[in-house]
Amino acid sequence: MTNESLELFSKDKSFGGWVEMYRHPSSACQAPMNFTIYRPPQAEKGPVPILYYLSGLTCTHENFILKAGAQQFAAEHGLLLVAPDTSPRNTGIPGEDDDFKLGSGAGFYVNAITEKWAKHYQMYDYVTQELPAVIEAHFPVQPERVGLFGHSMGGHGALVVALRNPKRFRSLSVLSPICVPTESPFAIEAFQEYLGEDRELWLQYDANHLMQKNTELDLPLLVDQGEDDEYLKEYLLVKAFKATCEAKGYPLQLRMHPGYGHNYFFVASMMQDHLAHHAKALCV
Amino acid sequence: MTNESLELFSKDKSFGGWVEMYRHPSSACQAPMNFTIYRPPQAEKGPVPILYYLSGLTCTHENFILKAGAQQFAAEHGLLLVAPDTSPRNTGIPGEDDDFKLGSGAGFYVNAITEKWAKHYQMYDYVTQELPAVIEAHFPVQPERVGLFGHSMGGHGALVVALRNPKRFRSLSVLSPICVPTESPFAIEAFQEYLGEDRELWLQYDANHLMQKNTELDLPLLVDQGEDDEYLKEYLLVKAFKATCEAKGYPLQLRMHPGYGHNYFFVASMMQDHLAHHAKALCV
Repeated sequence: MTNESLELFSKDKSFGGWVEMYRHPSSACQAPMNFTIYRPPQAEKGPVPILYYLSGLTCTHENFILKAGAQQFAAEHGLLLVAPDTSPRNTGIPGEDDDFKLGSGAGFYVNAITEKWAKHYQMYDYVTQELPAVIEAHFPVQPERVGLFGHSMGGHGALVVALRNPKRFRSLSVLSPICVPTESPFAIEAFQEYLGEDRELWLQYDANHLMQKNTELDLPLLVDQGEDDEYLKEYLLVKAFKATCEAKGYPLQLRMHPGYGHNYFFVASMMQDHLAHHAKALCV
Repeated sequence: MTNESLELFSKDKSFGGWVEMYRHPSSACQAPMNFTIYRPPQAEKGPVPILYYLSGLTCTHENFILKAGAQQFAAEHGLLLVAPDTSPRNTGIPGEDDDFKLGSGAGFYVNAITEKWAKHYQMYDYVTQELPAVIEAHFPVQPERVGLFGHSMGGHGALVVALRNPKRFRSLSVLSPICVPTESPFAIEAFQEYLGEDRELWLQYDANHLMQKNTELDLPLLVDQGEDDEYLKEYLLVKAFKATCEAKGYPLQLRMHPGYGHNYFFVASMMQDHLAHHAKALCV
């Protein structure tokens, strides 16, 4: 991709650094894709570590950077934040905007294989291959120092991406993650649409299954979860994932937080700890 | 107002305290009004100081609490935040939603006197009289410890309210304020609609004029302003206000910030300092 095809459409100073929003033609998704970066003040002087954030259902490239309060801590630690959109937009696929849990805002970080979705919904390839190449080519980053985190559907995405690319990242954390999508109602519906009926394929995007088979990923995993999260019991299934991690002896730190819900008021409340968790591994 | 008429419609834990959104029938505005509070953890144990925030054009009761990142610091200092909506909504006034700088989201903190707007647009009375009475009656607050701040149109509102009620507040600050509304295009249009042609009445809502006449208000005033704010020169006129303050010997601290714009990326970047400024006066 040339510099010319990376369109900066919004730029704002924030905590001494810069929030920048870009649009670029995605070859993986055969559509324009949006992403936001936060360029910390330290990036003026030289390359800095990268921390990717994958967002949840309904989110665009904006929600995280507007609501999570991460820039304050990214500026403190010197981390370049990258927050991609959760799907391509305006692809022309019939009904793409009709259901908050399917299509626009609901890519679920999978590579679709069904006729309806396969052309544009290649979000796994987008976040694991194409976006990192764009970031490494165009921004002052240290590509060997990369962390990953995410929230809800993006927590699912972060766990799956890390488990399938066990040597790629130096740090990993999730908030309110969908841990067992193959048993989670919203995700089941999306997996059927995007992946068809092949349950073996579904399992390649199921963090709990991947953790059961895991032999390579060994990053300390911080998981924060609100106890009053309305989706906890039926949709997120973090206790099943915890049991899997314990059975495997995986270094999981699950923190349950009384009173907290699922939205960005929770995410923002946890942000300082998450950025410290990543900085500890990325900024050494 | 009875407890029954104060409707809690949203509640989320945030930084150890609670974000709560309320709707209540406003007698000043003859319409339901929305406001948001942040109840810090310290309010569990006893009454705490109050810090009012007045928002800018287009904002609802939500923008500040979602985007400014104030809860982190309110929890640190033990301040109860109050952020009212910027106007009544759905009043039935023709065209109320048609223009972002008039009607819904654009109350300008004045008491309208024109036939079209007078019944519902009594935002000055609402924020100076009715809302404080609601807060003091229903929440664990110290009504003698009250601070006030605001952004843009809400910076105008905060300055005007403080200058006209010089003994009411213990602390005052503003961000990107409209300082001379009688010479600011958006405000002129709104003042004509709400207040008619009586320029003497306009001046009662003009911070620069009120500062020229001021003999009572002597609170240290922190003003933060982005130098790359697109509205700075034509709409905000902070330099004229600074000159007025200097001529009066008023304790103004104006900080100009290179690179920063007008929106919540700027507001959030300044929030720690503003809450510390208020806490210094309110938490002694």
